[in-house]
Amino acid sequence: MPRPQARHHVNRQRQRADYDRTGIHRILDAGRIAHVGFSVRAQPFVIPMLYVRDGESLLLHGSLGSRLMRTLGSGVAACVSVALVDGLVLARSHFHHSMNYRSVVVYGRAVAIDDPAEKAAGLERLVEGLIPGRASEARPADAQELAATALLRLQIEDASAKVRTGPPSDAIEDRELPFWAGELPLHPRYDAVLPAPDVAADTPLPNSLRRLLATHYAVPA
Amino acid sequence: MPRPQARHHVNRQRQRADYDRTGIHRILDAGRIAHVGFSVRAQPFVIPMLYVRDGESLLLHGSLGSRLMRTLGSGVAACVSVALVDGLVLARSHFHHSMNYRSVVVYGRAVAIDDPAEKAAGLERLVEGLIPGRASEARPADAQELAATALLRLQIEDASAKVRTGPPSDAIEDRELPFWAGELPLHPRYDAVLPAPDVAADTPLPNSLRRLLATHYAVPA
Repeated sequence: MPRPQARHHVNRQRQRADYDRTGIHRILDAGRIAHVGFSVRAQPFVIPMLYVRDGESLLLHGSLGSRLMRTLGSGVAACVSVALVDGLVLARSHFHHSMNYRSVVVYGRAVAIDDPAEKAAGLERLVEGLIPGRASEARPADAQELAATALLRLQIEDASAKVRTGPPSDAIEDRELPFWAGELPLHPRYDAVLPAPDVAADTPLPNSLRRLLATHYAVPA
Repeated sequence: MPRPQARHHVNRQRQRADYDRTGIHRILDAGRIAHVGFSVRAQPFVIPMLYVRDGESLLLHGSLGSRLMRTLGSGVAACVSVALVDGLVLARSHFHHSMNYRSVVVYGRAVAIDDPAEKAAGLERLVEGLIPGRASEARPADAQELAATALLRLQIEDASAKVRTGPPSDAIEDRELPFWAGELPLHPRYDAVLPAPDVAADTPLPNSLRRLLATHYAVPA
């Protein structure tokens, strides 16, 4: 659903743009940090925040000062960017060097979640976003913790994705140059777990972690 | 040099904040994508951009529409966020789940680089930022490419870093709970290189790539 004049329309490299919500959700679900932008009296702020997608909204968990969180949660216009690096692209020319990436830009307004039950559910979703299956392996938040938690819900009003994949786009006349060209894939990988110093030595590794480490993102044995 | 009322002062989790430029530079040099925020008539935009640090400024290379690049390059107030995920932090409580990370927020104004020689030097720095030593292994930009390149220089006026490391911060009374707690380190790793389909089979792997793959970020053999 491209909307040529809309704020989320991608003007450059249009062949890399995507407005389909399924693809946008997939990228948002693969990310871990959202860069949340808004303005206070013409001064822009961009704050890195933990987030998780919850249907057509983002739950945002900031460790930022209450002043900024209050401003953001008061419903000011916000813009959220999530970008994942997939690799470096080495071309025969400086000009065509690039990166492979998946990125999403979301436009919407955030509201503070005040209801304790909704806040507890949001916190649980954030834990599940961090590691699926983890929420049942830890103690849910109590009233005091919920009071100390600043959680925002940002409805996804408009969004666009931009993705680059594949080899460098070298000019035809450059392909005879004696330079190597290609991609260097780059992905986040888990290293060996580090138990907390005060965890009992016989505490089994939780199922959530076992499942996560069995995925292809784990470091090859 | 903490300045309590300044825009870049970190209000929450102050023990994680750092205003030392050396530490800030180190984080900026480790990142690859900057999330650049600015506003146009109260509408905030956050754009993921390739960047490289050049002394006390950032060179920004966008693939965004010329309209936004022109606005950003006209010297409007901007805020740039770079965040690197270092691991997941699993606590005994939902509340203390977290991530280990290094992040920097920079405040400044961007100006467009118009001078062709400065633009060529900036493009070369960007290539070097992507892979050190690579610029000499590829063809520098010609006049036509330079004309098609939108490059911005953002002077770092104010900046702060925020870093979390180490095990979960479980409450003392939670440490007896029968839950595993600890860290799952997470770092970008390179996978096997993919030569471009049209690169001659006998083209040697460039020295820049060889050096990069010899670092500890490479996937263990």
